[in-house]
Amino acid sequence: MTHPLDIAVVGATGSVGEALVQILEELDFPVATLHLLASMESAGSSVMFAGKKLKVREVDSFDFAQVKLAFFAAGAAVSRSFASKALQAGCTVIDLSAGLDDALALVPEANAERLIDLALPARIVSPCSAAVALAVALAPLKRLLDIERVQVMAALAVSAQGREAVNELARQTAELLNARPLEPRFFDRQVAFNMLAQVGAADEQGHTALERRLVGELRVLLGLPELKISVSCVQVPVFFGDSFSVAVQSRRPVDLEAVNQALEAADSVELVERDDYPTPVGDAVGQDVVYVGRVRHGVDEDQQLNLWLTTDNVRKGAALNAVQVAQLLIKHML
Amino acid sequence: MTHPLDIAVVGATGSVGEALVQILEELDFPVATLHLLASMESAGSSVMFAGKKLKVREVDSFDFAQVKLAFFAAGAAVSRSFASKALQAGCTVIDLSAGLDDALALVPEANAERLIDLALPARIVSPCSAAVALAVALAPLKRLLDIERVQVMAALAVSAQGREAVNELARQTAELLNARPLEPRFFDRQVAFNMLAQVGAADEQGHTALERRLVGELRVLLGLPELKISVSCVQVPVFFGDSFSVAVQSRRPVDLEAVNQALEAADSVELVERDDYPTPVGDAVGQDVVYVGRVRHGVDEDQQLNLWLTTDNVRKGAALNAVQVAQLLIKHML
Repeated sequence: MTHPLDIAVVGATGSVGEALVQILEELDFPVATLHLLASMESAGSSVMFAGKKLKVREVDSFDFAQVKLAFFAAGAAVSRSFASKALQAGCTVIDLSAGLDDALALVPEANAERLIDLALPARIVSPCSAAVALAVALAPLKRLLDIERVQVMAALAVSAQGREAVNELARQTAELLNARPLEPRFFDRQVAFNMLAQVGAADEQGHTALERRLVGELRVLLGLPELKISVSCVQVPVFFGDSFSVAVQSRRPVDLEAVNQALEAADSVELVERDDYPTPVGDAVGQDVVYVGRVRHGVDEDQQLNLWLTTDNVRKGAALNAVQVAQLLIKHML
Repeated sequence: MTHPLDIAVVGATGSVGEALVQILEELDFPVATLHLLASMESAGSSVMFAGKKLKVREVDSFDFAQVKLAFFAAGAAVSRSFASKALQAGCTVIDLSAGLDDALALVPEANAERLIDLALPARIVSPCSAAVALAVALAPLKRLLDIERVQVMAALAVSAQGREAVNELARQTAELLNARPLEPRFFDRQVAFNMLAQVGAADEQGHTALERRLVGELRVLLGLPELKISVSCVQVPVFFGDSFSVAVQSRRPVDLEAVNQALEAADSVELVERDDYPTPVGDAVGQDVVYVGRVRHGVDEDQQLNLWLTTDNVRKGAALNAVQVAQLLIKHML
């Protein structure tokens, strides 16, 4: 049996933090004491865990020496401010934001072996939802394909941007259906019944921070540091569940039969029937796997593999991956 | 001055047919008599044109010898049934469906020169909306790039499938916002707040007819019969306006400055400001151009060009292109 651990969740009142606490309970994670932390504005509220009401306290005054493991799900700024403090106190950090550039990105289904080189306490990144989904689906295909390039169109649900974004999509939709004039909030324009081609600001080269992050993390997760990855992250009027249109260019012809077999056998992958395709609402939301469908060659191109992926961006894409990383840590090291 | 023509519009009561009649009026197309035609179910209703109420008659009993030019916007089956009859009667056919496989696909901005080889009466295809948008944006870049491959994720509005699809998206959305149980009609599942990865049935190789059509038409329009084109057509919860995430692989480095200049100068292209991006709702709908934004290299890949396009699928993508083809015909031949 694993010895129960003292754990902290920073950002416990956000949607990912809440999912984290729920998943720790669902998976019977060996928790001794669970410390729920948040910024000053959110501290004071309560969150249920294992039948008990736990009070959320301020992260500023927390002594990280009390815990062995801390999940950071409160955004990049909070991670940058407190993760080093936690580490110095001997606490291993699993960061769900993009706050720790030099930390190791980890998705157990893709690069669990990288844990071996890790000295504790360590800083580990649970990657962005898109990188998690792509790593889970592509890692089992790595030996089958000689991957030259990966091309991704990521259709992102508004929930990745928190509850305010979810509420705003609902509000805009209701206003439009009632033919009332729309004054966008949160988003800088109408997101309901629309496609926003850019999520966040673009840099000099035209890429967003999220697109850069996805490329960097996916290279680490697949262990292919030179891999050509092009990605467009698009905001779509979907509440929950990210979708990905993926084209993988291989240096040799792709054996679809073998690809299907590898996906069937892969952990955390659900391959849908040939004549069906998965959707965020119908399949992914609330589930713990990456759904894969539309497995096919490119048109007249047998060196290309096309896929459609969809996954729960809050659970599998964020909270669940972080907890699975923690499970792996416990099993091997903590 | 051009001599006014006798013209027929088949499918005059559908959304594309209605847009066609409206655009003929807007552009002062030289019409002598306009014959509005439809299938038995829709015949009998009236459509306004140039201040007059025109009765829609049955296509079955129409004598195509009365007209020089007929637009077919009533679906593939009607085109297959009546286009040959029209042609035999000496009438040139501009077909907006996928009914005439062997007819020439034409987008004036891309391959107007192909008209020279055409003997009248002729059958001409006004391509699918996606092919129109891509041809308008890529044709001006053909000489700048040495295009090896085009990769497209097409996010299609429901209006491409007609009024019933538009009504169904509105109905589903209202049901969901009111927390009522959803029983999908028209679409085989929930389309509101969801992404449907496949539009129509897939063939043995996993491609849909629309995806095949797009590839075939775009090769003709760009005059690159061997071009590698991979495409995923996805149904998104948007009423009007198609969007396209495009990656063009060139055999040499892409000069972004030159690309921007070529797009600025191109007919029917509106290049948005560098720090902005176009959306279907905010830009494309009701407009006669293809909006282009997010012009950039691939991440770490200067032989790749990434673009985001959006256009009005009913107007520019369908009805307007057909009328522009007709204008070209008149100018040169009819």
